[in-house]
Amino acid sequence: MGFFTSPIKTFEDLYLHTVRDIYYAENRILKSLPTMIEKAHDPQLKQAFQQHLSETQGQVERLKEIFAHFGEEPEGETCPSIDGIIDEAEELISDVDDPNVLDAALLAAAQAVEHYEITRYGTLIAWAKQINRPECIPLLQQTLDEEYATDKKLTQFSEQRINRLAE
Amino acid sequence: MGFFTSPIKTFEDLYLHTVRDIYYAENRILKSLPTMIEKAHDPQLKQAFQQHLSETQGQVERLKEIFAHFGEEPEGETCPSIDGIIDEAEELISDVDDPNVLDAALLAAAQAVEHYEITRYGTLIAWAKQINRPECIPLLQQTLDEEYATDKKLTQFSEQRINRLAE
Repeated sequence: MGFFTSPIKTFEDLYLHTVRDIYYAENRILKSLPTMIEKAHDPQLKQAFQQHLSETQGQVERLKEIFAHFGEEPEGETCPSIDGIIDEAEELISDVDDPNVLDAALLAAAQAVEHYEITRYGTLIAWAKQINRPECIPLLQQTLDEEYATDKKLTQFSEQRINRLAE
Repeated sequence: MGFFTSPIKTFEDLYLHTVRDIYYAENRILKSLPTMIEKAHDPQLKQAFQQHLSETQGQVERLKEIFAHFGEEPEGETCPSIDGIIDEAEELISDVDDPNVLDAALLAAAQAVEHYEITRYGTLIAWAKQINRPECIPLLQQTLDEEYATDKKLTQFSEQRINRLAE
């Protein structure tokens, strides 16, 4: 074994493992967002992270509903992927002093987190069909839609910043 | 410091740090793909990973051209994000015996890797404008297009498998 607390024999085991993985990830993101809000210089970026913090709280609640559909208590399983992404981001931002460079690094880190969430929720939606759990799909889809919207907003924001700095 | 070998003071420092990060990541992916090819049961999945191996070799060559534009030797910088994603995938697939569940886990792992690459190349393209290095953009865009195409192919492949298994 190793990272994983229970053996994965069936598709449902794999499903629940992945739900626990993203549950851990969302909680790790919740812990790291206050630092990102504090470090961001641009008020719009601070506000975008603040909004994402509220959204993430809602996403955690939706995952609790998924656990309930399986009759399971909400429980995280250490996710080395999100730990790697967030550890790298925290280390990077602690190394940067210039406010514009720091905001760019924060934006890039947030987008790496978003893409991790997008891939995991996309997978969970596809697999919900496989294991015949259609009741999970609207909950997961709502979160996936939010993640795509956040990523798009961060991309637009990054482009606006670059144009503004280049003027 | 910590993970990073040189201080990040300017936008160009941040840029080169991120090029070194993705260069390390691509090389880590090159090392892990033969195991994924070996472990995959579905011949189409094996073939998709094989094709991605060839593409990744081309992507590494393009990154060498980016280094050359900056007068730098190609050099990786440890990327805890890709290490986390691949360590988690390798641990997961070593825990799964059922061939269908294993192929699903391999597909999900490959898509997590793709999304990491998509976010990093997207960032590098945006920043190339910021630091006035337009010569980097076509090289990075070609790789980003390949990553999107691979992710789309893996999604279609995942849906086809699910429909086939549900019949």
